[in-house]
Amino acid sequence: MNYPYRLLAPGPVQIPEYARQILAAPMIHHRAPQFIAELEQVFINLKKVFFTDEPVYILSSTGSGAMEAAIANTLSPGDRVITVDAGKFGERWAKMASLYQLKVETIHVTWGESVTKEQIEHALAQFPDTKAVLMQATETSTGALQPVKEIAAAVKKYPDCLFIVDAITSVLSTDLRMDDWSIDVVVAGSQKAFMLPTGLSFISLSKKAQAVMSKTKCANFYFDLKAEQKAYALKQTKFSSSVAEIRALHAILTKILENGISSLTSEIQKRARITRIGIEALGLTTYPTTPSPSLTVVNVPDTLDGKKLRRHIEETYNITFMGGQDQLEGKIIRIGHLGDISQEDVVASIEFLGKALNDFGYKTDWQSAVAKVLREYEA
Amino acid sequence: MNYPYRLLAPGPVQIPEYARQILAAPMIHHRAPQFIAELEQVFINLKKVFFTDEPVYILSSTGSGAMEAAIANTLSPGDRVITVDAGKFGERWAKMASLYQLKVETIHVTWGESVTKEQIEHALAQFPDTKAVLMQATETSTGALQPVKEIAAAVKKYPDCLFIVDAITSVLSTDLRMDDWSIDVVVAGSQKAFMLPTGLSFISLSKKAQAVMSKTKCANFYFDLKAEQKAYALKQTKFSSSVAEIRALHAILTKILENGISSLTSEIQKRARITRIGIEALGLTTYPTTPSPSLTVVNVPDTLDGKKLRRHIEETYNITFMGGQDQLEGKIIRIGHLGDISQEDVVASIEFLGKALNDFGYKTDWQSAVAKVLREYEA
Repeated sequence: MNYPYRLLAPGPVQIPEYARQILAAPMIHHRAPQFIAELEQVFINLKKVFFTDEPVYILSSTGSGAMEAAIANTLSPGDRVITVDAGKFGERWAKMASLYQLKVETIHVTWGESVTKEQIEHALAQFPDTKAVLMQATETSTGALQPVKEIAAAVKKYPDCLFIVDAITSVLSTDLRMDDWSIDVVVAGSQKAFMLPTGLSFISLSKKAQAVMSKTKCANFYFDLKAEQKAYALKQTKFSSSVAEIRALHAILTKILENGISSLTSEIQKRARITRIGIEALGLTTYPTTPSPSLTVVNVPDTLDGKKLRRHIEETYNITFMGGQDQLEGKIIRIGHLGDISQEDVVASIEFLGKALNDFGYKTDWQSAVAKVLREYEA
Repeated sequence: MNYPYRLLAPGPVQIPEYARQILAAPMIHHRAPQFIAELEQVFINLKKVFFTDEPVYILSSTGSGAMEAAIANTLSPGDRVITVDAGKFGERWAKMASLYQLKVETIHVTWGESVTKEQIEHALAQFPDTKAVLMQATETSTGALQPVKEIAAAVKKYPDCLFIVDAITSVLSTDLRMDDWSIDVVVAGSQKAFMLPTGLSFISLSKKAQAVMSKTKCANFYFDLKAEQKAYALKQTKFSSSVAEIRALHAILTKILENGISSLTSEIQKRARITRIGIEALGLTTYPTTPSPSLTVVNVPDTLDGKKLRRHIEETYNITFMGGQDQLEGKIIRIGHLGDISQEDVVASIEFLGKALNDFGYKTDWQSAVAKVLREYEA
């Protein structure tokens, strides 16, 4: 293939060279003084990224592990919860909650749309004994941004109800203020805006959630956050730390904070904005009603098979986009905006999506679309 | 510090340069064809390393996660299990089993000793309804090797009893034949003889264990091996694969199998043998009755504080050994033999341990000890 490989999926993402070099560094022990000093700094910096004064725990797992930790540590069998099902990851909350024998009330949102504050208020009024509302900040399967801030305010009115947010695809790409907005549990993962390989997940609990946790028997050994809390007090993780990845995280967080979090967030939002200008210039439309800046979800023209299109782009132009799942299989293309993405990558995503459509007989003026994208970058 | 850093702990371990370079490679997606092909080969090669025809699942977690998966997928509340407590990791089996509401019968073995086949037979005769025997192959906290083969034969006589082995510190360093010996569950981890960073764990189930699993409701979402089994059939992992580490694993396994597994096992056993010659030449003794080749556990002379000694070696000579925990705190030094360890590293471990003892006023003839080690390498 003549084209360089480009990973433009919603996650995993392209990793900056300097972080990759740290992954390749000789191994040091997780109890060695040098690592302990780095971990301590990572713990401090994670709080800044989460906009919280509470500890952020680091787990060796994918983001789903931290989602399970959220449930296992704050909820008990028979507790009622409200889950928002606006896509595949909302479904996952409901599945996990059922496994933990919670009474699950699900708000079904048409895929591509976002839940409203009113829907949550209505559900809470109907079930005032609800112990937690569980949702996504960005529903990665549809690209829809959810109104976290507004809903946090609605949930806050119920003193016994926690607001648990899977922000895996939202931390660092959208404004998300854990303490200011009163989010009780925030979950994140390394392979998204943290620009690292899959393998670490992060979770932070508000004081309110910590109080609930102290009274909750965790039915899980590996994801027992009370044990993690004890380790944290000693500046450690409960189990062997993922040294290589945490050291790379240290470098990433240092750089993000040097430049300012808002600089990264703006950069991601700029990529999203310009990509969408390019998409429109290709004559295409986007799927979600309120799109997240983390990814652009493009409607595949009705006449085409999106699965074949996606594979063609990967095989011919060496770009990995993601497709849709379940009801969206073959119908959407998901273009990620997180990670170490250059202007060239954004231009390539429009150019090769356009060319690929032409290859399938769907005519696009991709040259003009590229020109528009380039002009936006100059603006 | 003038000395190069040496990581000679029981794990994590030194990672070969070629594997570190792969960790630094640009990221590719876990659904990209190139990765799928690599993962498929890793699945094949893991079977060889486990000496099994059954699938070996890859989890994104430390080894403790795979231990929990073993329990969560094959046992149910009220089931009786026998755990062998011969150190910290044996204790962990018992703690996990209690959390899962199993009836736990614990065989307490004096630390440093190994459980005997007769003790297991006796316990099984006393509790013939036992659903599983859980133990370590190498108890990493004491360095004691456990007689897995003999005990497997004893457990096999009980058709309703599974034999579950934490072989995290034993796979690839000791002879361990899952199928031939009838071990029902084998657990391993990336940061040991696999010479990779912490972050992956491995688990394989015998046909007998798989049959039990199919009838067991797993109370765990992230470690649900029935879901992993479905993903495996599609040549995938259930959650986002840890791409970077799995690609490095691919390189490691390819190299190990090219040279032959027995070549690696012999090399590790040689390091252990020569280290122990050096330890004896320093006038020191080793702790376990039947030592595992994975690590050498050295008794710290009574007059010295092992914690201070270990820290001195780290700060002055830039070598990380591990100390002891609980009743062994300050009393032992653990020297690891897994990972990318050169002859120079083995020599350095004897030289600097000897020098450090001298620094503390405990006279050793470390020059002669080094000479002995060097002669052994020439032999």
